[in-house]
This record gives sequence, structure tokens and C-alpha cells, in this order.
Amino acid sequence: MSALQEVTHIDNVRLGEDGKSVVILDQTQLPNRTIYETLRTAEELYTAIKTLQVRGAPAIGICAGYGLAALARQSAATDRAAFDRLLREQSDYLVSSRPTAVNLSWAARRMCALLDAHGDWTVPQMQDALEAEARAIHREDIEMCRAISEHGLSLLKEGDGILTHCNAGPLATSRYGTALGPIFLGTERGMHFRVFADETRPLLQGARLTSYELQKGGVDVTLICDNMASIVMKNGWINACFVGCDRVAANGDTANKIGTSGVAILAKYYGIPFYVLGPTSTIDMSCPTGADIRIEERDPEEIKTKFYAEPMALPEVKCYNPAFDVTDHSLIAGIITEKGICRPPFSQNLPTFFRERK
Amino acid sequence: MSALQEVTHIDNVRLGEDGKSVVILDQTQLPNRTIYETLRTAEELYTAIKTLQVRGAPAIGICAGYGLAALARQSAATDRAAFDRLLREQSDYLVSSRPTAVNLSWAARRMCALLDAHGDWTVPQMQDALEAEARAIHREDIEMCRAISEHGLSLLKEGDGILTHCNAGPLATSRYGTALGPIFLGTERGMHFRVFADETRPLLQGARLTSYELQKGGVDVTLICDNMASIVMKNGWINACFVGCDRVAANGDTANKIGTSGVAILAKYYGIPFYVLGPTSTIDMSCPTGADIRIEERDPEEIKTKFYAEPMALPEVKCYNPAFDVTDHSLIAGIITEKGICRPPFSQNLPTFFRERK
Repeated sequence: MSALQEVTHIDNVRLGEDGKSVVILDQTQLPNRTIYETLRTAEELYTAIKTLQVRGAPAIGICAGYGLAALARQSAATDRAAFDRLLREQSDYLVSSRPTAVNLSWAARRMCALLDAHGDWTVPQMQDALEAEARAIHREDIEMCRAISEHGLSLLKEGDGILTHCNAGPLATSRYGTALGPIFLGTERGMHFRVFADETRPLLQGARLTSYELQKGGVDVTLICDNMASIVMKNGWINACFVGCDRVAANGDTANKIGTSGVAILAKYYGIPFYVLGPTSTIDMSCPTGADIRIEERDPEEIKTKFYAEPMALPEVKCYNPAFDVTDHSLIAGIITEKGICRPPFSQNLPTFFRERK
Repeated sequence: MSALQEVTHIDNVRLGEDGKSVVILDQTQLPNRTIYETLRTAEELYTAIKTLQVRGAPAIGICAGYGLAALARQSAATDRAAFDRLLREQSDYLVSSRPTAVNLSWAARRMCALLDAHGDWTVPQMQDALEAEARAIHREDIEMCRAISEHGLSLLKEGDGILTHCNAGPLATSRYGTALGPIFLGTERGMHFRVFADETRPLLQGARLTSYELQKGGVDVTLICDNMASIVMKNGWINACFVGCDRVAANGDTANKIGTSGVAILAKYYGIPFYVLGPTSTIDMSCPTGADIRIEERDPEEIKTKFYAEPMALPEVKCYNPAFDVTDHSLIAGIITEKGICRPPFSQNLPTFFRERK
């Protein structure tokens, strides 16, 4: 395996050997330590998602799938009514860990839909079916990331400078990633890019994860603070912005890591195309606009004390710490999905991506 | 003294009792420790400015003035030729510590101009004159900050939300500050504002200094990460942006802390007026546009390791770390100086601020 393949095939989420646990690469420990955690209970799964040990919209969808399969395998219920009731409770509980990312609820809904579809199956049959469904979610995500990478790569040319925000690479997804997928795929084919990674405060996923993945994969990466995006664009170093997404509304408004909307506004100002990359499972056609997306607010200590050797602000200073923001559809040049590139007007063009869906 | 006055009268830079040293409040230790440092040699002064123990364009101008007065007082030279030569060397050396801020070279030039003006004076006479000049620079800065605060306050109304970037308060200047001056002055008069302070990576002057000053002074302050400026503007919480400046070109292009240009672009997008506040000594009429301003690049470790309990990126990851960026004049609603508010077109209106100058 090449250094690049080692990155794109990183084992970030998988079902445990026993089928009763989920093994994750603890992303909060990177880049300093590579630690795998085995999660067995609903509480452990909830906490791992909540504390971002596993993060990235596609990865937490996969984790929810495997998590529910593992919990189902552990179920002591002998009749389907009790089995189903418990699994639905556990599903709701996992979904409540992070309200913004749609993949989490999408994966959980897909797992639970299996219960409805096969009311006559026995508990052991359902346990097998749920495991198969979780594996299908994972397998499909690998295929989706590959397809997204191909479509995204069609927008890049040799030597391009790309700015990305947060982390939408192999750690956040499966294999190539979404926003970083075209970069890894192009690199694998001998192309060269110059990537600028926003460090992405407060949790520094860009510094800790994106620059880690790209550096390990042999891609030319330069780490910048979030507030340096304007100057690198002004310097003429950026040909395109590629970001992931946590939820896309029916009109194309896109919730992604806090700061994404600012990058999009800067890109518009400097005349640089801004692209959103993600699977169609991230598009929530039941959500009319970004105003309908609930934005998770997180602990102020993430801003004031986390990661630091000592506090960076007085304890009494209040903070505002939204985990996401919504990028207006008018700022987005295209939404790159596994089914192709959707161009504006999104209200008109996004539905066509679903009509052909089974 | 009220809590607010304790902040606005903070003793950030002064000449030592002996006239041969400069005493500074070490800003790198805030908010956790209040430590005063006594600087005696040119090397100590250079390092204090370089490492941002004393920082803020006006404050480093004052520090350079007092520094040269202190070095002059220590001079072993008995004839003026040797005395002048040494002081000019020391002046050039101090100016080289930070290339972007104009106040540093402005203050140093003003001190050295005294040498030319009084070639017939004795060394002791010059020593006294240099000390008086340094005190005049400081006194004038206090008056300038007060005047800037009055002019800036005329743009605010009760209850306004203000976003600021980096630190242009009492620590960076004298007394009220520049960008924070109108806020402190209005608060002193019983007005209420809601201030959002960008933390300002990588050195976190917004978190460590701005939120510290405002909180201590009883002002309603909320700390945000730099990449949250877009969402707070979108939320409708911001009525105006107030920032300081390190150098303003003749066309109004403004160099200020890295990230300022991004804030200005966001403000333009959201229809929020963006104001630059600083003394006319920050306006460099010999510099035609922002393209002529040299931007200081700093150590990548400020991004990857500084302040952190452990590294936030792999050691081999490269960083780009410019200390400043240039905000295009077209994004600026007004430049607020001690002589009043300059409105666009700046190329036409800035010179009028100098014609009346002695």
C-alpha cells in the first residue's frame, strides 16, 4: 500500500469482530496518538458521537448503522415487539447526540425502516438483516465517496490551489472522503494540487485531521488560521473552494462546520467558485431552506480552555459557540453528489437528483 | 477609580523612574498574569516588540519613543557625533523589529528628527529633549485616543452591537484605545453596547486582551472564534465593525491584524458599516496603496504549537502565517482619526487631514 492508500483506506469506523461492538479511530486524539476505541453500549456510542471521537456527517451515519446493528445483536428480547421497541429507543437516543447532521438520522431511519419492512421475521433474522444493512450503508458510502471524488475531480486541473474548511476526508467519511476526495483521487492519478487547510476553530479539525491526512498522503498542504482565508484568496493562490456538508436544504442552503459561510462569502468576493461536496443522503428535501436547520451550540470551554496549556480568556467571559453555519445557496457554484454536479438554481435542479432514486 | 477607569488608565508603557529604562505590562502573560517588565537595552526593547510583549501600533510607537529616550540617557558618548550615530543605529534596529506598523518608524523618525533640529545642543541637553519628546508622543497619543473615541462614539447609538477584531483598546494604545475607545467612552457615559470580540488567531489578542479589557471594564462582551463573524452578522447582532490599523495607505487601503480584510468583506456582504480607527500618524501618505505595504510573516509554530498543551498538527506540516492583511479601501465606510471621520473617496479626502497639520 502506498502512503496515499494508507490514508484513503484508514479504518475509521467498523463493526467489531463479535458483531456486538463498534470500533472507531478516536479522532480527538489525532494527530498525536492513533487510538482505537471499542464501543459496546448505547451510552458509549452516544458519547463518542457527541464528543467527536467519531465525526464527519458520513462517518457518524456509518457509526449509527453499525451501532444499531451491534445493539440489536446484544438485545435480550425474545419477541419482536420488545426487540423493536428497544432498538427504536436506542435509535432516537443516538440521533439526539448531534442535531444538525442529517446522515445520522438518515442512517438511523434506514435501520429502523427494516423493522417495519420485516415484521414477520424472528429476532435472529432481524439481527442478521440489521448487520447486513449497516454493512450496506458503509459499502454504499465508499461507492458514493468514490463517485463524488470523480465528479469533483472533473472540476480541477493540474496545479490548482484548493481551499478547504474543516475535515471532509477519509476520517470523516469512507475512503477518499467528500471535499478531499477529488484531491486524493487526482493525486493517485499523478496530479498535483496545492491545498490550503483552514485550521477550523474551535476544535481544529482542519489542523488536526485535514492537514494530517493530506500530509500523510503526500499532498502539498499548507495550514492556515481561519482568518487567513481572505489573504490566500487575494494572493491568487486559490482556484476553487471545496467543503463538505452536514445538511443541505431543498433550496441548496448548506449547513456545514462553523465558518463555512464566511469562506463562501470571501470566495464570492474574490470570484472563486465555491463547491459543496456530499452524498445525496445529506440533502434533506423535507427542509425547505437553511432557516429550518437547527444549529447545534456547543460548550464555551471549547473556545476558552480546550487544547490550551492555560485559559485564553477570563473565566467570566461569555462565548457564543455554534458548531455550524448555513451558507446561502446564492454563494454556491455547485453541489457535487455521487449522482453528479448539481448547478443552480438548486430549488429546480436538486429534485432531479431524487426522481431517479429508487 | 471605577472598574472602567482602571482599565482605561492601565499603565501599559512608561519611562522608568531612572529615565534609563522602559517599563511595560507584558501582554503575552494576560489574561492569566499581570507582570511588568523593565527593559534597559536595545536588545530587550527589540525583543519585547518582536515577541509582542508590547503590541498595538500606538503602544509600540510610545515604547519606541521612551526606548530611544532611555537609550539616549544611557549613552556613554560625550560628543554629539558619537551620540547621534549610536542613537540612529539603535533607532534603525528597533524599527526593524516589526516592519508593518507605521507608528514604530513614525515615532523613531520623530525622535531622530530632534537630533537634526538641534545640532548645536550638548549631549545632556539632547537627553532631556529626547525624554520630553517621548513624553509628548505619549501625551499626544492620549489626546488622540480621546478625540478618536469622541468621533467614533458619534456613529453609535444605545444598544448597538459592535464587532471588533484583534485588540485596539487601552493595552494597544493609551487610555481609551482606538477601536475600543468609543465603546469605553460611551460606557463611561452610561450607554450600553453588546460587543463581539473575534478571538484573533493565532495569537488570540481578541480572547486574551480585548475580552479581558471589556469584561474588566463592565462592557457586555461575547467572545467568538474568527470564523463565527459571519453567523453573528447574519443573526442581525452587529450594527457596526470597529477595528484599529497598523498602516493606512494614501488611498485608504488599510493594513491591520490578519483577518481584518475578511471581516470587512463579510460586513460588506451583510450591509454592515466597517470603520477603521486610528491616529493620523498611522496614515502613511508616502505609501500609495496597500500593495506597497510589506506584510510581516511570522513563525509557523504560532499556528501549530503555541499556547497548546500538545501540538495541533504534524511537525512536518507547513504553515503560512502572515501577521497582517490589507483591507481594500472600497470596503471601508470611514477612517476615524483624531481630526474627524474621513469618508470615501479616501484618495481625495485623506490629504485634507494633513493640510491643516503643522
